[in-house]
Amino acid sequence: MAIDATHWLSLLSPTFSFSLWSKTIPVLAAATPEAEKGPLVLAAVLLSLVIIYFASKIGAELSNWMGFPPVLGELVGGVVVGISALHLLVFPESGSSASDSVLMTFLQGTSGLSLDTIGEVFQTQSEVMSVLAELGVIVLLFEIGLESNLKELMAVGIQAVVVAVVGVVVPFVAGTAGLMLLFGVPAIPAIFAGAALTATSIGITSKVLSELGRLTSKEGQIILGAAVIDDVLGIIVLAVVASLAKTGEVDVSNVIYLIVSASSFLLGAILLGKVFNQSFVAIADLLKTRGGLVIPAFIFAFLMAYVGAAIHLEAILGAFAAGLVLDETDKRKELQKQVVPIADLLVPIFFVTVGAKTDLGVLNPAVPSNREGLLMAIFLIVVAIVGKVVTGLAVFGQPQLNRLAIGVGMIPRGEVGLVFAGVGSASGALSEATEAAIIMMVILTTFLAPPLLRFVFQEPASVPAKESD
Amino acid sequence: MAIDATHWLSLLSPTFSFSLWSKTIPVLAAATPEAEKGPLVLAAVLLSLVIIYFASKIGAELSNWMGFPPVLGELVGGVVVGISALHLLVFPESGSSASDSVLMTFLQGTSGLSLDTIGEVFQTQSEVMSVLAELGVIVLLFEIGLESNLKELMAVGIQAVVVAVVGVVVPFVAGTAGLMLLFGVPAIPAIFAGAALTATSIGITSKVLSELGRLTSKEGQIILGAAVIDDVLGIIVLAVVASLAKTGEVDVSNVIYLIVSASSFLLGAILLGKVFNQSFVAIADLLKTRGGLVIPAFIFAFLMAYVGAAIHLEAILGAFAAGLVLDETDKRKELQKQVVPIADLLVPIFFVTVGAKTDLGVLNPAVPSNREGLLMAIFLIVVAIVGKVVTGLAVFGQPQLNRLAIGVGMIPRGEVGLVFAGVGSASGALSEATEAAIIMMVILTTFLAPPLLRFVFQEPASVPAKESD
Repeated sequence: MAIDATHWLSLLSPTFSFSLWSKTIPVLAAATPEAEKGPLVLAAVLLSLVIIYFASKIGAELSNWMGFPPVLGELVGGVVVGISALHLLVFPESGSSASDSVLMTFLQGTSGLSLDTIGEVFQTQSEVMSVLAELGVIVLLFEIGLESNLKELMAVGIQAVVVAVVGVVVPFVAGTAGLMLLFGVPAIPAIFAGAALTATSIGITSKVLSELGRLTSKEGQIILGAAVIDDVLGIIVLAVVASLAKTGEVDVSNVIYLIVSASSFLLGAILLGKVFNQSFVAIADLLKTRGGLVIPAFIFAFLMAYVGAAIHLEAILGAFAAGLVLDETDKRKELQKQVVPIADLLVPIFFVTVGAKTDLGVLNPAVPSNREGLLMAIFLIVVAIVGKVVTGLAVFGQPQLNRLAIGVGMIPRGEVGLVFAGVGSASGALSEATEAAIIMMVILTTFLAPPLLRFVFQEPASVPAKESD
Repeated sequence: MAIDATHWLSLLSPTFSFSLWSKTIPVLAAATPEAEKGPLVLAAVLLSLVIIYFASKIGAELSNWMGFPPVLGELVGGVVVGISALHLLVFPESGSSASDSVLMTFLQGTSGLSLDTIGEVFQTQSEVMSVLAELGVIVLLFEIGLESNLKELMAVGIQAVVVAVVGVVVPFVAGTAGLMLLFGVPAIPAIFAGAALTATSIGITSKVLSELGRLTSKEGQIILGAAVIDDVLGIIVLAVVASLAKTGEVDVSNVIYLIVSASSFLLGAILLGKVFNQSFVAIADLLKTRGGLVIPAFIFAFLMAYVGAAIHLEAILGAFAAGLVLDETDKRKELQKQVVPIADLLVPIFFVTVGAKTDLGVLNPAVPSNREGLLMAIFLIVVAIVGKVVTGLAVFGQPQLNRLAIGVGMIPRGEVGLVFAGVGSASGALSEATEAAIIMMVILTTFLAPPLLRFVFQEPASVPAKESD
């Protein structure tokens, strides 16, 4: 016998239900929608996971078979099950309601619940799936940190800074100036669009590098280091642009706060890591029960992720720093091996969710603002690609490096560009056409980068295609 | 750059925030509590996980060091951080609000959010943690299924049925009759209390057996098989008792439905499993990308868990059946190895949550109904223990078996007993004293069973103390 609490109540009603150890309240609550909801949330989460795993595996295998990085297939798999196609996995943020979700319609049909209750189930299931996706990208960056080497990363530090700075400045200036001069866009929206061109998606780029077996190459480490710095720069750029749009001025104290907190967090993590290394190994050696290595490691990773988020940076930066620190320990290999199946289970949730939330409707030329935005989109895409590709050229004194690969590695903008579009749109600064253009740019750079990266890293690396098993 | 959507908005406001790939709505939503909430939910989940992992690891290590099964320490660790002591991890079902949660108070202090928003964060965080705990017990039972062997389980099938039936009938009859004759309790509440004595907690008992290295012993397989049958019998008993309390009659069609669906599910899973075995290995061999074994396995496990729940059985029964089926394949060993770290990460969430939700206040003699219930509780505890210990004696024709161990293995009632108490209380049938007595019985059998089991399995088994790493 196990976890069922409200389950039993289900025998009295046409719904089925399951929940945890509830002392006295479950039954009183059973009369309310709250208790009817709980069981269905788990059912909805289980089915969502099944859909995600199907989409990710079929997508990854087809992509791999066609010579593309598997993650591209996971993204496309997400698009297929998501808002753009099958509607199996949709989210309320994009304006969907429970009745737009095929999964919710199915659950409502099989459980006979009211529309109101299903609406709540949909809301909660979406929140749970979003948290699981975020845990997925946190685990991904933790794993990437474990695969990376702090010393090697520091060794390419200067090149990474150069790549990051060039990769922020060039697209920003070219994008903003081009929109103002060529398209007559006013300054504020042009600045927003320019800012949206700055930020590389660590998640997508590091996953592709890892899949190509290039993460630990010098190029891979420069890209990764640059993407991390880029992330911090992007946060600062957004703070500046957003306060500019809001008040017409730059909130200098906030910018200084961000710079100081970001630097002290990353440096602090590395310094503290040198001390913590030893204690971590000592603690893990002391523990005699199951999970004696993986649990302390995840305590550290989740704590760092929390701190990264709490100081207005990002959870994934904290997880990455935690991985870097633990990579320095003797337990590295053992830990890496144990993290693989955990990542295999959680990371696809992130990529499929990203795909599922991508609304390809913005590419539909039948919508006027899309048509209007099309030329602008083409311009932004060119700037997005060229502006990052040139960063490779800025790397000096390393003639043997694959500079093109470095530049291409910085291309995917991922979801961050969408955030800029969103903030700009909410502030009223962006026209619909400009917003649509930014979204098209983000979609195309995200989906183009994996095959391009594979192409520029043409020479075969010693990659086991099936790393995990 | 990564997953931040509303994060960026945080720079405009005193809250911090992070969420996923949101196209256009995040910003509009940012004005609402919904968007302020998202980021804090992840922060709250990360901190809850850190608390859970600390509690589980410290508890498990201390328990192991004192010679008890680690899971007892995880339960006690949960009690320490939960509603009974530190209030770090509390749940709204037990009547707690956000202000009762130390974690929420901390988050409110650091984020400056309104009480209303924190209330919503608390609600969502609790829902997410409950789903994670349920996924934890699903993974546990999947792993137990993988560790078990269908043939061995079938070989002890008759003994398991005998143990299950005796273990349901004896405590039910003795408990009901005793309460009526000795305590003058009316029939309906006495039947409820008797029914609450029937159900063994698969989760706790199988975890302890696994920790003692006895899961695959003949005794272990009998206990496991009996606990599964017991689970199904318990569902039927509750259906009968609940409809009795509600309408005064037994809903025969529902009982027949349950018996048929339970039998066809378990048999169907086993038969289908024989066919699916081959296809599973073929599919896993085909897959070339990461997670090529673990993802198909979890698709199957989660799908079976969903089906188990959807037909009014339990999610964990589905997961157990999935594990049993996959145990038959050539991939067993490889899969088991990969499931270990996943279980290490998810299973403690379940046990700590069970502990955290246990309100030891019911043991407080200062409360009148607790005092009144005390004698009844002592009686119920004696029946609960003796009524299950005798089941071992009912096993025939196996003189070499440790019959005491079989009986003791059936003792833990876990949360299911609480459900009976809850259903009874909601139907108005149970007095406060009777309800308190049932809860005391459940708490004591749950916490007594692990050390007792260790004691009766005294002779050392060939167990590696640290199985996972």
